[in-house]
Amino acid sequence: MNDRFLKACRRQPVDATPVWLMRQAGRYMPEYRAVRERYSMLDVIKTPELACEVTLQPLSSFDLDAAIIFSDILPPLDALGLGLSFEKGEGPVIHRPLRSAADIAVLPPIEPRESLSYMLDGIRVTRQALENRVPLIGFVGAPFTLASYAIEGGSSRDFKLTKELMYGDAPGWHLLMDKLAALIGGYLVAQAEAGAQALQIFDSWAGTLSPFDFQEYVLPYVQRCVQAAKSTGVPVIYFGTDMSGMFPFLAQTGADVIGVDWRIQIDDARRLLGPDVAVQGNLDPHSLFAPWPEVERRAADVLRRNGGQVGHIFNLGHGILPGTPVENVRNLVDFVHEFSR
Amino acid sequence: MNDRFLKACRRQPVDATPVWLMRQAGRYMPEYRAVRERYSMLDVIKTPELACEVTLQPLSSFDLDAAIIFSDILPPLDALGLGLSFEKGEGPVIHRPLRSAADIAVLPPIEPRESLSYMLDGIRVTRQALENRVPLIGFVGAPFTLASYAIEGGSSRDFKLTKELMYGDAPGWHLLMDKLAALIGGYLVAQAEAGAQALQIFDSWAGTLSPFDFQEYVLPYVQRCVQAAKSTGVPVIYFGTDMSGMFPFLAQTGADVIGVDWRIQIDDARRLLGPDVAVQGNLDPHSLFAPWPEVERRAADVLRRNGGQVGHIFNLGHGILPGTPVENVRNLVDFVHEFSR
Repeated sequence: MNDRFLKACRRQPVDATPVWLMRQAGRYMPEYRAVRERYSMLDVIKTPELACEVTLQPLSSFDLDAAIIFSDILPPLDALGLGLSFEKGEGPVIHRPLRSAADIAVLPPIEPRESLSYMLDGIRVTRQALENRVPLIGFVGAPFTLASYAIEGGSSRDFKLTKELMYGDAPGWHLLMDKLAALIGGYLVAQAEAGAQALQIFDSWAGTLSPFDFQEYVLPYVQRCVQAAKSTGVPVIYFGTDMSGMFPFLAQTGADVIGVDWRIQIDDARRLLGPDVAVQGNLDPHSLFAPWPEVERRAADVLRRNGGQVGHIFNLGHGILPGTPVENVRNLVDFVHEFSR
Repeated sequence: MNDRFLKACRRQPVDATPVWLMRQAGRYMPEYRAVRERYSMLDVIKTPELACEVTLQPLSSFDLDAAIIFSDILPPLDALGLGLSFEKGEGPVIHRPLRSAADIAVLPPIEPRESLSYMLDGIRVTRQALENRVPLIGFVGAPFTLASYAIEGGSSRDFKLTKELMYGDAPGWHLLMDKLAALIGGYLVAQAEAGAQALQIFDSWAGTLSPFDFQEYVLPYVQRCVQAAKSTGVPVIYFGTDMSGMFPFLAQTGADVIGVDWRIQIDDARRLLGPDVAVQGNLDPHSLFAPWPEVERRAADVLRRNGGQVGHIFNLGHGILPGTPVENVRNLVDFVHEFSR
């Protein structure tokens, strides 16, 4: 197996910098759009064979060093009975958002092996299809990010309701985070048992918080999820955006790898994080819309700033965007390998 | 005159930490809403007596150490002929956005003393009314932030069109930034001549960029604006949000003070910025919705982290939000003075 990615997660030497791209199976690929013309987002997520097909698409087109199971971070909210749909142009909608302590109190315990078995089956089917070519990454949404969707009822710009609950009803907040951490921790363990060889925790929106609030209301629950995931023996990646100001204490999550968005130079990020974690990132996904020489300059800058240190997985600073030119993606993946070899 | 604010800008000792709040004249105040029931946003901005009235409102209610002239960052785009209105619930709209190199080439040179004289008159009237009680701050939008509104046609979440122009037409981008820097630099000088005793440059959205792009496409133009402003002898504040990752090189702007949003601990920000700049910030404006003891804990944390070092102006990490409880604002201003004395 191509084990560059797993070695880099563990800060071991590699022959070339491993590269994969967040949302590498996505709308920018014609093959993906063809599947999505026939099936809805939830159809693909809930049908293991379709999830497998879409997961493998980018591996046929690009020389990637890891696959990530096609899914979404929100199915656990569906499992909790909050109702989930993906509306065209609007993003995800949670139909019965949490608006009171009573809503939180009645959230049932979830057994992911039952309620989320379709995702675990997707991992099993995909592992078989991959035939050990590259490792398969499983993933979850972190407790804060899931809580924000559950409370806001969808995407948000300012997370007003989320912060109101956090500040106005601390016991309610901690009960919600406790329930989500238990669910997510169990889901991570189940994914590793189903065959995921690394696990990424997406805390997409935790960067909206002050470090004060993150440390008090969020970090302990991230630590619980990371511990659960690490108990399975697979490496764990923690990723959020807008978190540059939290890097001085983000190694405390316990994750093996910290994902770095594009808003900080990766050498500055490493200095702040300390020597005991690997990093993943951090090209601005928008830069892939530039003419190739401009993309190359920016990719080379990331690699030069890492300076050949062990423990770097090349990636974008956030998910690849719809409309990204496929040719630039192919060039980027090849360039990372050639430049770093 | 109460000169705590100006002394802190110059990193001189003060008897108590000075405090003012971004958007301190705003929708959260009933007096402000009463004025806005009779006059539109543009009416208030373009009528010096109304701008003065609104500027002074928060000083009657709270023990603030500085006033900031009531205006907006976008009138320069109006002066450039792009058409500006403020739509209810939608924010600002630019009616003739820049979409091509040709649009940029024909942008006329602007003499702020003519096209923006209403704002300068507002400063003159307000200085008289203030009778030297506290200093008056003037302000502008930075070149990148104005460019992003001009190109996107209003607010944006991902700044796609802005980045496309930047990557796809570098000469067009630099021409636009050159024209905006000339206009903004002249506007800053004119504000100081009209009586502004400090100048703040709002680069509200520059945090959407990678440090690579910021340094190449934006920083030189910020430096030109700062130099123009400093040539008048008044202190200069540079503020953006989401810029924690840029602090290692943000002292290069040349500003006397760097505004710090709420996403980084202020001691970490100071360490990254180095000893030669003052800082302004950085309470999360959302935290003012919490019960007062929770606000106090967070305000005390900011003050403790600054640890009594010279060169700290207390402020929020972004503008005060509509709906903020007035009583918490009053308590906050008094608490900052008492705690730091």
